Amino acid sequence: MILEIINKKRLGKELSFKELDYFFNGYLDGEVKDYQMSSLLMAICINGMTDEEIYALTKIFIDSGDVLDLSFMPGIKVDKHSTGGVGDKTTLVIAPIVASLGVPVIKMSGRGLGHTGGTIDKLESIPGFNIALTDEEVMKQAQDIGIVLTGQTATLAPMDKKIYALRDVTGTVSSIPLIAASIMSKKIASGADKILIDIKVGKGALLRTKKDATKLSSLMKKIGKFYNREVSTIISDMNVPLGRNIGNSLEVIEAVDILKGKIKNGNLYRLCIELASEMVSMAKGISKWSANVEVLDAIENESAYNKFLELVEAQGGNLDGVEVSSNVKRIRARKRGVLESVDALSLAEVSLDLGAGRKAKEDEIDYTVGIKLNKVVGDIVKRGDILCTIYYNEKSNIDINKIRDSFSIE
Amino acid sequence: MILEIINKKRLGKELSFKELDYFFNGYLDGEVKDYQMSSLLMAICINGMTDEEIYALTKIFIDSGDVLDLSFMPGIKVDKHSTGGVGDKTTLVIAPIVASLGVPVIKMSGRGLGHTGGTIDKLESIPGFNIALTDEEVMKQAQDIGIVLTGQTATLAPMDKKIYALRDVTGTVSSIPLIAASIMSKKIASGADKILIDIKVGKGALLRTKKDATKLSSLMKKIGKFYNREVSTIISDMNVPLGRNIGNSLEVIEAVDILKGKIKNGNLYRLCIELASEMVSMAKGISKWSANVEVLDAIENESAYNKFLELVEAQGGNLDGVEVSSNVKRIRARKRGVLESVDALSLAEVSLDLGAGRKAKEDEIDYTVGIKLNKVVGDIVKRGDILCTIYYNEKSNIDINKIRDSFSIE
Repeated sequence: MILEIINKKRLGKELSFKELDYFFNGYLDGEVKDYQMSSLLMAICINGMTDEEIYALTKIFIDSGDVLDLSFMPGIKVDKHSTGGVGDKTTLVIAPIVASLGVPVIKMSGRGLGHTGGTIDKLESIPGFNIALTDEEVMKQAQDIGIVLTGQTATLAPMDKKIYALRDVTGTVSSIPLIAASIMSKKIASGADKILIDIKVGKGALLRTKKDATKLSSLMKKIGKFYNREVSTIISDMNVPLGRNIGNSLEVIEAVDILKGKIKNGNLYRLCIELASEMVSMAKGISKWSANVEVLDAIENESAYNKFLELVEAQGGNLDGVEVSSNVKRIRARKRGVLESVDALSLAEVSLDLGAGRKAKEDEIDYTVGIKLNKVVGDIVKRGDILCTIYYNEKSNIDINKIRDSFSIE
Repeated sequence: MILEIINKKRLGKELSFKELDYFFNGYLDGEVKDYQMSSLLMAICINGMTDEEIYALTKIFIDSGDVLDLSFMPGIKVDKHSTGGVGDKTTLVIAPIVASLGVPVIKMSGRGLGHTGGTIDKLESIPGFNIALTDEEVMKQAQDIGIVLTGQTATLAPMDKKIYALRDVTGTVSSIPLIAASIMSKKIASGADKILIDIKVGKGALLRTKKDATKLSSLMKKIGKFYNREVSTIISDMNVPLGRNIGNSLEVIEAVDILKGKIKNGNLYRLCIELASEMVSMAKGISKWSANVEVLDAIENESAYNKFLELVEAQGGNLDGVEVSSNVKRIRARKRGVLESVDALSLAEVSLDLGAGRKAKEDEIDYTVGIKLNKVVGDIVKRGDILCTIYYNEKSNIDINKIRDSFSIE
């Protein structure tokens, strides 16, 4: 049966719900081995899946764990997910904005693995911040202040978790059907009524082409329709890093700056406003234009920032304790010109080498290290200008040439 | 590097010798894991390999172990290989024929796994027959009597052995490039000057279509050319079993009957004569017609049978000890007509269930069980006629309906 299923997909045939169910649950049970699952996953990567197969796989992922019931909170719950980018701290910004406008935000996030950082890791750079709330704590805090940011529980789509870990080491990450089933199963199991997906495209993203992003978008909408969940998508650029800061503490600081109204331009600011407006529009059923006005107001009148402070306090964090390494190295331009591009993937790798992320699951993160861009795309650069500032520790591996090559000055 | 290589093949790109070498030797060393190798193998199955990649892989397989040097024996050494069939005992017949005509035969065979039986298992049904000769014993026996049939040593293309075991459980067996590299590396490492490949096509074979067989044939010839080895191929039918007997002792008995001149018709007889003639023609550089005359003579004048007796004696076997189970069940026809087909794969599975083969590597074989066909394709069948005779033991699992359904009477 195991071999029959693999052979069927190898030949590009459609698998039935029963066959997928047998194979994937067999993997959870240990009957199907790692090497058999990776063989099937590669066949899926190359030969694809039909819509019916994708719906089935999404259901199998959802049913492998618990489904959260958020009906105790009044109102429409909108969840947002990003396919992963470099310097992506949008959740830290938009969750408080949206919550401050009366839309409940109960969000379970993951850790980072590979070159994209996880929201949970960023939150943990705030000393004391508890990212492992119990179900009761989640419910109480949601009712008290309307916002919760916590880690994904082990019981949420556990099959997806196990398979994601295998995909990560077998070259089977870049499959649009697998990405769609993985994301949608987690979002549906998290209890959201409506789902907003930020699909990243470019050098620093999982998807490299607009075409693939459009495919993923339409696939996730189809899955949403099948499960009676409204899905909106935004396709956003990930060739250059989002904002100026990469690294956990640095990203928290940048998010706070946006919430405080200190930053009012740049790709990060614009994306945060767009995503927050879309979420508010979806939740309240108002036009995106009206939602946009509310979002800008929430920053202006500091209600968004205050909501963030409430969140940090409720989860035991001490914002004053957020620290950045005092070991600093400034990288200067060797020629003059206009900064044409900043390579997101390359800087993500630099950040990883500094110690800001994990190469393997067991790795420990240093929250204080990272990169701050002193110049962004479009800036005029003079010889000797600081391009970026590196925050490092004694274990950091710094490749100056790689850092400098990440900046194209023409 | 591991993931880069998998991703490259996933996208259908060509891998360099260096990349293949790194990945496959990394697998032998344990750096590349089973689940990574199976992922790459599946990508190869679906996306194929270029000729350059196949030559490279063949070389990597060969270099993973020893290469036998048969130059101590005068004359051209021809090796024969079958891609695996049901009831295929041709080696037992043609090796003595060819050796009796002065062409040295030093053949290393494998064990059976899955539905096709191995020559080594058949030889072991002769009590006392030693299939684990040392290099010195091989050399001495080759010089003494010009024929050796022994098991593959662990040092012959060990990488192929490890990868074959993985392919077997990951649905990645049916890849023409992988089949070609696997067979050719073993044959080249075995020291043969010329190689004859019997490519089986049909229900009971690895390859199901003539088209695939032709592809494999041309690929193996190309590899042979690259390695300066003459390769001939014969494409033969494997929809119906070869000969009348399936099961180890039963197959030895049938081979002996052909060598004794008792059987002079049927698909097994014809194939043996064809293969033996081709081998003699290749080795002596004479026409196939002249070779055919010599082969028929060798049977007629009993020199082939006598060579077989010499072989059995030299390797310590006792032919009189070959036993067939005394538990016998006769399967009779329920209707009359002409026997239109006998399903080779189905009977191979029946034979496996009787205990004649291994489902897992650890399984023990019962040499005495098997199936004897009392009717073959084209025979007229009356209601109540015996279709076949089942030799079983107390552990055998006999599915009478499956056996009867293997015979199509129209």
